[in-house]
Amino acid sequence: MVIRHDAIGDPAAAANSDHMITFEAIKARRNVREYDNRPMTNVQLDQILEAGRRSPSSQNSQPWDFVVVTDEDQLRRLSAVWFGGAHIAGSAATVALVVAAEDAARSRVQFDLGQATMSMMLAAAAFGVGSCHSAVGDHELARELLAYPADKTCALLISFGYPVARPLAPIHEPDRRPFDDVVHCGRW
Amino acid sequence: MVIRHDAIGDPAAAANSDHMITFEAIKARRNVREYDNRPMTNVQLDQILEAGRRSPSSQNSQPWDFVVVTDEDQLRRLSAVWFGGAHIAGSAATVALVVAAEDAARSRVQFDLGQATMSMMLAAAAFGVGSCHSAVGDHELARELLAYPADKTCALLISFGYPVARPLAPIHEPDRRPFDDVVHCGRW
Repeated sequence: MVIRHDAIGDPAAAANSDHMITFEAIKARRNVREYDNRPMTNVQLDQILEAGRRSPSSQNSQPWDFVVVTDEDQLRRLSAVWFGGAHIAGSAATVALVVAAEDAARSRVQFDLGQATMSMMLAAAAFGVGSCHSAVGDHELARELLAYPADKTCALLISFGYPVARPLAPIHEPDRRPFDDVVHCGRW
Repeated sequence: MVIRHDAIGDPAAAANSDHMITFEAIKARRNVREYDNRPMTNVQLDQILEAGRRSPSSQNSQPWDFVVVTDEDQLRRLSAVWFGGAHIAGSAATVALVVAAEDAARSRVQFDLGQATMSMMLAAAAFGVGSCHSAVGDHELARELLAYPADKTCALLISFGYPVARPLAPIHEPDRRPFDDVVHCGRW
């Protein structure tokens, strides 16, 4: 699949994208581990990757590269890089976040990867596309399949696709601590 | 200021919020360090904090508490916790992200803080509200002003407010590496 970067920002594409307003997407985003076989469009993939590319990072270091995989056989093989990575096999697309191996454990890189991950997941949620992130256990397999340079490592993978069951929609009662427990006004 | 949590999800409030679609908010988000003196509404603060509360985290650990500050004098004093924190003084609101002191340096906590930060910044951007994050240098001062328990630490602060100059709008040419440099299709 060729990523059509020129589709980004195309008003016609945006108008046709059935895009959620931001707070709806925030409320609708959830981890999805079982995907149906509906493919994603190039516009959707472009916007998700563009969301990652635009993410802020410490001193604008942009410590990441993104390898996007949509080939069915490659996705199946990639799902073996982590014992909890089965969701990758059935995804419409999976994005590998690759960083310099020597920096991967740095706090600021991890913080920035969290920012990029959230931005991509929310860009997906706006289309009704679910996501799930996966750690990497078998780094040799990941490197063989994704072919990144020796001084890089795959920090995590994010799978994307339409949920096989319940479509993405704003969640009214998320499984989270109560608002008044988490939020303190003025002082703790 | 009292946070009106009951305003969250109010359809009338949402309809009045002039909320951007998700990809517009992603393109419009930027660091803003100079704020005008226009206050933020309770609905806006609620949605930003709710975006943080809903963020995903490792094993749903939700390692954070949020202390939201809107008092002008307290903001001015809080701005001294970091040499680069002057933007806090002029913000309409600043949220302190507080975590267990012994976990603050863990990769997964930093990753999760990145996710929560991005979600809050995008929720703000959807209203045209800019944001900027700040590190904490003077932890004693932060603790004195925010009164969190001894076993907690303030990991970062995020200030929010309307930009004093150029309003938030989708950025066409962000200061980032080119898309085709960052994104690899199939393999590196």
